[in-house]
Amino acid sequence: MSLFTRVSAVSATLRRAMSTSAAPVRVGIIGAGRIGQVHAKAITAMHGAEVATIADPFEKFGLAAAETFNTKYTPNWEDMLADDKIDGIVIGSPTPFHAEQIIKSAEAGKAIMCEKPISNDLATIDKCLDVVEKTNARLLIGFQRRFDANFKEVNKQVANGAVGEVRMFQINSRDPAPPPAEYLASSGGIFLDMMSHDFDQARFCVGAEIEEVFVAGKAFEEAAQQANDLDTVLVMLKMSNGAIGTIGNSRRCAYGYDQRIEVFGSAGMLSSNNRTPHTVNFSNEGAISSALPYSFFMDRYALAYSGVMEAFVKMIREGTPPPVTGLDGRAPIVAAMAADKSVKEGRPVRLAEVDIIGTSSQSAQA
Amino acid sequence: MSLFTRVSAVSATLRRAMSTSAAPVRVGIIGAGRIGQVHAKAITAMHGAEVATIADPFEKFGLAAAETFNTKYTPNWEDMLADDKIDGIVIGSPTPFHAEQIIKSAEAGKAIMCEKPISNDLATIDKCLDVVEKTNARLLIGFQRRFDANFKEVNKQVANGAVGEVRMFQINSRDPAPPPAEYLASSGGIFLDMMSHDFDQARFCVGAEIEEVFVAGKAFEEAAQQANDLDTVLVMLKMSNGAIGTIGNSRRCAYGYDQRIEVFGSAGMLSSNNRTPHTVNFSNEGAISSALPYSFFMDRYALAYSGVMEAFVKMIREGTPPPVTGLDGRAPIVAAMAADKSVKEGRPVRLAEVDIIGTSSQSAQA
Amino acid sequence: MSLFTRVSAVSATLRRAMSTSAAPVRVGIIGAGRIGQVHAKAITAMHGAEVATIADPFEKFGLAAAETFNTKYTPNWEDMLADDKIDGIVIGSPTPFHAEQIIKSAEAGKAIMCEKPISNDLATIDKCLDVVEKTNARLLIGFQRRFDANFKEVNKQVANGAVGEVRMFQINSRDPAPPPAEYLASSGGIFLDMMSHDFDQARFCVGAEIEEVFVAGKAFEEAAQQANDLDTVLVMLKMSNGAIGTIGNSRRCAYGYDQRIEVFGSAGMLSSNNRTPHTVNFSNEGAISSALPYSFFMDRYALAYSGVMEAFVKMIREGTPPPVTGLDGRAPIVAAMAADKSVKEGRPVRLAEVDIIGTSSQSAQA
Amino acid sequence: MSLFTRVSAVSATLRRAMSTSAAPVRVGIIGAGRIGQVHAKAITAMHGAEVATIADPFEKFGLAAAETFNTKYTPNWEDMLADDKIDGIVIGSPTPFHAEQIIKSAEAGKAIMCEKPISNDLATIDKCLDVVEKTNARLLIGFQRRFDANFKEVNKQVANGAVGEVRMFQINSRDPAPPPAEYLASSGGIFLDMMSHDFDQARFCVGAEIEEVFVAGKAFEEAAQQANDLDTVLVMLKMSNGAIGTIGNSRRCAYGYDQRIEVFGSAGMLSSNNRTPHTVNFSNEGAISSALPYSFFMDRYALAYSGVMEAFVKMIREGTPPPVTGLDGRAPIVAAMAADKSVKEGRPVRLAEVDIIGTSSQSAQA
Repeated sequence: MSLFTRVSAVSATLRRAMSTSAAPVRVGIIGAGRIGQVHAKAITAMHGAEVATIADPFEKFGLAAAETFNTKYTPNWEDMLADDKIDGIVIGSPTPFHAEQIIKSAEAGKAIMCEKPISNDLATIDKCLDVVEKTNARLLIGFQRRFDANFKEVNKQVANGAVGEVRMFQINSRDPAPPPAEYLASSGGIFLDMMSHDFDQARFCVGAEIEEVFVAGKAFEEAAQQANDLDTVLVMLKMSNGAIGTIGNSRRCAYGYDQRIEVFGSAGMLSSNNRTPHTVNFSNEGAISSALPYSFFMDRYALAYSGVMEAFVKMIREGTPPPVTGLDGRAPIVAAMAADKSVKEGRPVRLAEVDIIGTSSQSAQA
Repeated sequence: MSLFTRVSAVSATLRRAMSTSAAPVRVGIIGAGRIGQVHAKAITAMHGAEVATIADPFEKFGLAAAETFNTKYTPNWEDMLADDKIDGIVIGSPTPFHAEQIIKSAEAGKAIMCEKPISNDLATIDKCLDVVEKTNARLLIGFQRRFDANFKEVNKQVANGAVGEVRMFQINSRDPAPPPAEYLASSGGIFLDMMSHDFDQARFCVGAEIEEVFVAGKAFEEAAQQANDLDTVLVMLKMSNGAIGTIGNSRRCAYGYDQRIEVFGSAGMLSSNNRTPHTVNFSNEGAISSALPYSFFMDRYALAYSGVMEAFVKMIREGTPPPVTGLDGRAPIVAAMAADKSVKEGRPVRLAEVDIIGTSSQSAQA
Repeated sequence: MSLFTRVSAVSATLRRAMSTSAAPVRVGIIGAGRIGQVHAKAITAMHGAEVATIADPFEKFGLAAAETFNTKYTPNWEDMLADDKIDGIVIGSPTPFHAEQIIKSAEAGKAIMCEKPISNDLATIDKCLDVVEKTNARLLIGFQRRFDANFKEVNKQVANGAVGEVRMFQINSRDPAPPPAEYLASSGGIFLDMMSHDFDQARFCVGAEIEEVFVAGKAFEEAAQQANDLDTVLVMLKMSNGAIGTIGNSRRCAYGYDQRIEVFGSAGMLSSNNRTPHTVNFSNEGAISSALPYSFFMDRYALAYSGVMEAFVKMIREGTPPPVTGLDGRAPIVAAMAADKSVKEGRPVRLAEVDIIGTSSQSAQA
Repeated sequence: MSLFTRVSAVSATLRRAMSTSAAPVRVGIIGAGRIGQVHAKAITAMHGAEVATIADPFEKFGLAAAETFNTKYTPNWEDMLADDKIDGIVIGSPTPFHAEQIIKSAEAGKAIMCEKPISNDLATIDKCLDVVEKTNARLLIGFQRRFDANFKEVNKQVANGAVGEVRMFQINSRDPAPPPAEYLASSGGIFLDMMSHDFDQARFCVGAEIEEVFVAGKAFEEAAQQANDLDTVLVMLKMSNGAIGTIGNSRRCAYGYDQRIEVFGSAGMLSSNNRTPHTVNFSNEGAISSALPYSFFMDRYALAYSGVMEAFVKMIREGTPPPVTGLDGRAPIVAAMAADKSVKEGRPVRLAEVDIIGTSSQSAQA
């Protein structure tokens, strides 16, 4: 391997990076838990960005995280809103706090990155987005899969017309193992907790709005049965561009974390397969064996999470609009509500039935 | 996707990371060029490690790099040897400086990570390794492929006996495009410049020493012809454990950076395929198309480069021996010399012919 | 390659074949068209079986086929029923003739292989199966996919419990290009004409009965629009064992004849990919390209069609029951009727709604 | 699936086949063993061709085969030469008889298909080809791999310039298990018995002559050691067009019958993978498993063997020259002799050293 190859191109990139004499983008993080730390790590690894403060009501965890990332700690997230040197707020707190934190951050003039969902309640979301709109705040929703190389490629190729007119699509999304019953009990149900990501993916990859859903689902295992939830669901979707498709979710998947999509159109098909930790095959007298997909979503989407933070920092630095908007955060909640209704009533449900305001003015594309 | 999944396991890891109250490992970097910056970036992203100083004779580049990584700059690398707070030295300078820098770093009691090759001259290497041995210095050689998930898997499975007795192997290593003639002229030739990595890979993946080589090669393109070098070579190897194999190198590869290995034994075969930026397939009326391999070695081996630095920091922190030793750095140079001789004399050449000291006492495994 | 390898085993097989001194199985074929000839060719290539007569009302075609296969011709298929030397009848005539030909062949004591469908009318099917039952006739239905190596493997592994409890499945079945409008007009609609194969495949691969269907469908192209038919349909199924699944059909598929199934269960997943004419990959600066699937169903299922005839001859020779029964021929028609009803009424339809007799006593497995 | 699809095109083909009013091609087969029966079966399944007689000195086997294929038997192959109604002779006898049978068949004016090798002795081959030339006989050599869809595709694409200038190639050919010691003892050695096929494949796929070989080889197992043969060999080749390549053979392959080739050039790479009985993948908690390659060469090359007979019948019917000539049968023997010499002398050997007449006037392409 010649170290010389393409040296000039890379040096140019590095030189550009090095010449960034502007002040770094400074970010405050609410929540010292796992997701907050993932974002803190991503920011730390970026040139031209730094973690200004980490806020968490639990002092022990907050202080430890602050030490890890060489930054300040506060038990009170609202302190960060008053700090002029903080450009953006990353909201990694539990869901019930999201709406208030978005609203106050927006009013304080901060750029905002909020983990999904904004809320599980549509009225709360709408109130929140109202403030965002009135304050001209820029709000990025953390659908990390939109920053995954595979799904970005599907989105791009569909938008480029590679498959022609989109006619059918299939999304498979399966978790390695179900969470414990107590988690399920407060999860909001499989549609909000799990499939909301796939509803977003359908909008992102197909480039259209979800208009109708019909659900077949079942609780095969005790955990879901006890929580009065489903663990295996298949949802049929009709999209605003005429495409029809399915999303299949399972809380259990023996072979790991399964995340695939297939988009079929008049001119061809795009199919996004799983990613694996390595690509070594082993052949012996029994079979040809290849590696399982990643078994944990934070491994599968490690680069995608970094992509979210890069997009957030870029948004702040360059003043560009968020690539995933508040309306993108709202649409999957509406779909999840319609899916719930479909299960209860055993019939196809149009999203307009559960969403009087309507989603017709939303754009589905990044 | 449930954010809950496996949360406890991950939190444990993060908690461990957070509890590292020990002083961080401090590293000085010689060379502000591309490879120096790759290492600096990897250290910056690690918990418990930091770049203490960057040394480079060219002030402009050195200062810019130091600013990028928030660290000190010195035009004189020897300054770092006197600094008690510096634990390890990363040598990313041009090859002719490596030996002296290793020797002085070893004498100064620093841990050392040196980019390959130590030198292109066997006597110089031996003198250097002599000092390393006498000073009890720990020297890590930067064969980054040994830290790649694919090749690590092959090495591990072969060592575990998955393929039984190793009988044949094939390594393919092809660069996207040849470097310019002026680079080739001073590259030391394709065996030192390019195949030395593959000689190392043969030792690592097969778990044995190279005993004999026979070369068929050709200069198909003008660049190599002008430099009196070859651009396409196929080397047959006999290993100390009886396995026979080939390494194929090409300076040009239309479809990107091709890096594969296949190890065949009495009980089966391991084959390591390329890695691709995404795993989306596109089917239309012409073909089913899938993504090309990465076209640049720094993309292909991005995680492997981080792995080198993690190994270096771990080596310093825990006092463990280097996973890639000076003798591992020496062996490929001997093989390259034998390959050169095989080309010139048109016959198989045993490594013992060019290496009177012998390599029999070396261990091939990490 | 050593010609010796396994020579004894093969010779044994050949010796057994050679020692078949029993009289050959003699088959009469109704229909000198394409499918009749496919069956005639398969029989001709078999040891211990021969085409006794070919019947076709169009003398020109019938005579030519008889000459091709070195056999007799008759314009009147009923002649064959009177021929004591004919053991079995292959019905390859147009659908409207099937029922009468089955009934009279059954009454004549012949073994019967009938192309699907028996009829598009449920009452006619039931009357026909009634006669088959009363006469103890053995009737094999020509669902050739059940003899395809891939689908047989899925069926076998599911039955062996490889995936544990079946929870979800997906069948994709797409034709290269739609037939002309005039064909569509008399085709019986996409569910009878095209999806009936997939309904059978669902029963075969999942090992359970279809209980409910819900359809989303559309006519994207003019041909289907003119015929008042659909060309793109997605059907959601609930099975008697609790599994849920989908079948997707498209009359157009840019990349060829797409025939895949995925069966997902508690313990793993089986996925059957397409077959291709060759397995050569081509990598250049644009992509890694691999071969398209077969673009014609008679190529894709060439071996499966031979398998149907082998099963038929074996059934006659050994007196074993048909591996695909009349009830297997009936079930997909019921599912197609329910799918039609679902489209018209925009709601999920249980098969029991369109089938008062019920399918509960049928076995879904070969 | 619509039975209508492409019906007209197929009917046209069948109509053409049916209109063949010309007399059938009549073939006599020497040898009632396995390979003779494979050819007899292929001819029986073809329109417009028939097996006229089967000759075998062992009456019991010959009679049984004749009965199986509804044809005549003779203990004396020379009888067939006198039979005016026989157009072509298929030679499936043991190697020592090939040369005499070719010579007498040529003198009798018959078209000839002879299993490889013509002989293991170069002088005998040359004498034989001399007669073929003088009598203007058409002789087809049975290198069945040339009729395999994969290798035909590689040959075609290389000839079309898909990979540009061919620079490197790799052939892997591995048998599931070694033959018994007594077979090995009289096999002529691994180069004649096994690698001669791969030498032919190199010529066919690369489109050039072999000029030089260098061998590394070993007897890992007792069977080969006892026979004073090798069971694992790696041969490096230099071709007349400048390409360099390797052929690897192993008498044992845990995962089945491994038959692959990779041709790398200035513009890209063709790689031909194995064929498998099915394409179903199974994913569970251990791995993603896919099917092993066929484990028996007669399964792997079943269609290719038919292709040989189709080519032979076409050659007779249309008077076209043989697609695989006597010179194609000669070249691999020369390469095998050079490989033997390379093993004995431990050095690269040019084919011209063992072949004074030279092969320069031969064409390597079908």
